[in-house]
Amino acid sequence: MSFENNRQVILVTGGTGFAGSHLAELLLQHQSGEIHITQFSSKDSVDIPGFEHFKLHQVDLTNSDATVQLIQEVQPTQIYHLASFAYVGKSFEKGSSLLINNILLQHNLLEAVAHHAPQARVLVIGSAEEYGLSNKSEIPITEDHPFRPVNPYAVSKIAQDMLGFAYAQSYKLDIVRVRPFNHIGERQTGDFAVSAFAKQIVAIERGQQDVLLVGNLEGVRDFTDVKDMVAAYKILMEKGERGDVYNVGSGVGIKMKTILDQLVSFALVPIQIAVDESRFRPLDITTIVANNDKITELGWQTTIPLQNSLQRVLDYWRSIL
Amino acid sequence: MSFENNRQVILVTGGTGFAGSHLAELLLQHQSGEIHITQFSSKDSVDIPGFEHFKLHQVDLTNSDATVQLIQEVQPTQIYHLASFAYVGKSFEKGSSLLINNILLQHNLLEAVAHHAPQARVLVIGSAEEYGLSNKSEIPITEDHPFRPVNPYAVSKIAQDMLGFAYAQSYKLDIVRVRPFNHIGERQTGDFAVSAFAKQIVAIERGQQDVLLVGNLEGVRDFTDVKDMVAAYKILMEKGERGDVYNVGSGVGIKMKTILDQLVSFALVPIQIAVDESRFRPLDITTIVANNDKITELGWQTTIPLQNSLQRVLDYWRSIL
Repeated sequence: MSFENNRQVILVTGGTGFAGSHLAELLLQHQSGEIHITQFSSKDSVDIPGFEHFKLHQVDLTNSDATVQLIQEVQPTQIYHLASFAYVGKSFEKGSSLLINNILLQHNLLEAVAHHAPQARVLVIGSAEEYGLSNKSEIPITEDHPFRPVNPYAVSKIAQDMLGFAYAQSYKLDIVRVRPFNHIGERQTGDFAVSAFAKQIVAIERGQQDVLLVGNLEGVRDFTDVKDMVAAYKILMEKGERGDVYNVGSGVGIKMKTILDQLVSFALVPIQIAVDESRFRPLDITTIVANNDKITELGWQTTIPLQNSLQRVLDYWRSIL
Repeated sequence: MSFENNRQVILVTGGTGFAGSHLAELLLQHQSGEIHITQFSSKDSVDIPGFEHFKLHQVDLTNSDATVQLIQEVQPTQIYHLASFAYVGKSFEKGSSLLINNILLQHNLLEAVAHHAPQARVLVIGSAEEYGLSNKSEIPITEDHPFRPVNPYAVSKIAQDMLGFAYAQSYKLDIVRVRPFNHIGERQTGDFAVSAFAKQIVAIERGQQDVLLVGNLEGVRDFTDVKDMVAAYKILMEKGERGDVYNVGSGVGIKMKTILDQLVSFALVPIQIAVDESRFRPLDITTIVANNDKITELGWQTTIPLQNSLQRVLDYWRSIL
């Protein structure tokens, strides 16, 4: 299905967040249509290039009336539903609020779309965390890998994904689901490993911290630049098979230790590293690497080398600290 | 693992509900130990044989503090976690409250167990609804059938099931998961098809209703007597493989039309039937039949013929209406 001849009314929920803000930038560059973004709180940063071109809605999507009002007002033709709490490491402590938040805002959005914008195409955002544990023979992970989640965040994303499936089937909504693997870039919070490393390196460069504290470095992950990730979202909005689900990841596994070494090599001062066991999770998944055959068949590929992404993350933290 | 030589402290959440009350009766007959049951509201019926032998706790398990207090006070060694909202047909209307309720009470219970009774064995209750859509070649449904849910109730049970998996992995809790297929018997509410049929037949027998209203009768389901179902729960508590998941169902598919014909044949007066399209769901699953190899290998089998169950359901409605 192609929308290229129609002017779109695009809604990006969580549009001031990490991936949301990069997506909004991309859509603006492509003059893809009228772009509405939502943010949960006016305290959230809105330091996004081109921000003045977006229509900003402050709305709590866990409130069903507010969500209905938003959908009625905007009448979107395309919805990128990126609003979500994203805490993997902290997800046991914050389990209840994380589960309620992520599941309610998915349910409310799909209900509002079913009743007030049933023609809209909706991109539902899952996570590679849904897959959880894998045997070696299951790597790289395809979309039919069973769910073996190891934390409440992963369960909240399974529920979002499965609500997307259920509404696509029962209400015949035009839903495409995506399961992004790790992605990095400017504006990601320090709760995520790569940003946590970069933030500490900058603090050490400034003489504000002595030692870089790290968790488990043995895990193998699949890192994609956030700009490549949101390009995949745009491709899925335009070309994804209705009702289907797509992995997005580079397909290349890299040890966290290698990421750390690369970042440290960019530092302006020598960096001392120490293991902080409080950063270990109850159970850490050994390897998460995507089989990305389905999304590459739609024409997607990664364009930004990892070193470039890591350098930009470091420069970002230098610019804001 | 066998507990036969130890006195158990058993907690049945939702113990005044449909399956919960039958399970409590069974445990009492077997003098399985000290039996604690929870109920959400004092308005719930407590007309259960032997009720005076149970220790009743009125507690809202969506309240995490109350759940912690319950687990600290009871110090259970076995927990049958049956508390749950069970609305399949109404689950789109009641989606938010159903999702929040079922997911929160599962999360709160597992958190409380992880921190205050980590040795307890916990039975987590999923549902055949988790499987949702199937191809013909996938019938009967094994435990590794992918999740293809078609309503919010099914998604809430997937989340409960997956939280059970995550806590078993990350906190090494002694969790067994079960996916019950349809079950029927006394004390099931009129929201479920067989009870809805029986309730209406009794109303027609009493001259209070003219016509029996039905929804879709083409679906094929797998019906087990609730007494056989809770016997499976007891077997799983005693012999289920830690961390594993088990279907429970008869393995026999039967058309809803056949169930209806059987019930109508038991009626004391002629019954006229009419289709009520408001009883149709947005999407109804064609066939749900269990592959029960795993549970039968543990020694479980059905013992109660379907006609017996149907006659008892009818007699139950005659006794309470």
